[in-house]
Amino acid sequence: MKNTKNDFKSGKKNAMSKLTDALSENLVDKKIIPIISIINKSPEYYTTSSCAGRIVLMQIPNVGDKKNAVFLGRWHRKIDLKDLNQAAENADKGQLWLIAQSPIFHIACISEESAEKILKIAYTAGFKHSSIKSLGKTRIIVEVCSTERMDFPLGEDGEILCNEKFLGFLVKISNELIDRLHNKLDSFYKILKKNFK
Amino acid sequence: MKNTKNDFKSGKKNAMSKLTDALSENLVDKKIIPIISIINKSPEYYTTSSCAGRIVLMQIPNVGDKKNAVFLGRWHRKIDLKDLNQAAENADKGQLWLIAQSPIFHIACISEESAEKILKIAYTAGFKHSSIKSLGKTRIIVEVCSTERMDFPLGEDGEILCNEKFLGFLVKISNELIDRLHNKLDSFYKILKKNFK
Repeated sequence: MKNTKNDFKSGKKNAMSKLTDALSENLVDKKIIPIISIINKSPEYYTTSSCAGRIVLMQIPNVGDKKNAVFLGRWHRKIDLKDLNQAAENADKGQLWLIAQSPIFHIACISEESAEKILKIAYTAGFKHSSIKSLGKTRIIVEVCSTERMDFPLGEDGEILCNEKFLGFLVKISNELIDRLHNKLDSFYKILKKNFK
Repeated sequence: MKNTKNDFKSGKKNAMSKLTDALSENLVDKKIIPIISIINKSPEYYTTSSCAGRIVLMQIPNVGDKKNAVFLGRWHRKIDLKDLNQAAENADKGQLWLIAQSPIFHIACISEESAEKILKIAYTAGFKHSSIKSLGKTRIIVEVCSTERMDFPLGEDGEILCNEKFLGFLVKISNELIDRLHNKLDSFYKILKKNFK
């Protein structure tokens, strides 16, 4: 057990050094910095990767083939029609998808009890799709994420197939979703703060 | 440990009795019966709930508010424009969403090793969103599901806001997804059969 604890500590040391680099290069979404800071202060946890949630315009050769996806636009904020049309100018071949993704956190936990504790907090904050991704000997990986998302095919081969009015409706819905997801981040932060004194 | 094993056995007995009832009432999708049969034959596992994947037309008051969702249409097969338009006739208030959902299996496992074994099989079959949902004293619950899904907002307040041509494109994409998901079910069955002799 002592070795296991040391392995956890050295895993955390590596992860924290990578995080420091990412922070200094402004690669971490501002919205999640207070959240991962609280988690990483606890000796029971460390974060390995996180995203604040985003809207993405993606080009894929076929349905589900995300391996070969090309990102035409990526926004961690609300968008407007102009954002979308500008990003779509670079589309050429394959399906065009507008996707709104939940915030996601991967958290290494030192024990089953720690994993259960953070899962409970995540559920309470509304991240109902959270789960344990792997049971390792030195750490348990918990994924915190939400069920809300939008995956919308907009067109193919460089062409948006719906009209501007409908596109405006999709932008409205995407932005409502981003609002809802940001509220969940606020709630996650507040509950963490209460539980991690 | 003996008690834990007995608790697992009695949990399985209850679940199997419910499953027998559901089978006799034709409430279980035909596509998944061979899969859950293989799993339930093993003393290490039992299934608690499963779905073969489906296309759904749903009405919700606001984005993400699935608690108050009304199902206007539910199909475990490919759909056509007529299916969609007929189901949408009953729409009145709120947002209309067309959703394609991955097959999903909840599997109770007797040990961490059993959980890891079934997770590995699920990943190999392409169910990349599989995870451990809970670590109980008497059982570990694994959720097997896939990353592919589609969540399209189609309109609001009883009105589909995109035109027929675009709706045809959405139906095409939904059906491609259903095909892809059914192929994963076939693959899951084959790999299970190989591993559960």
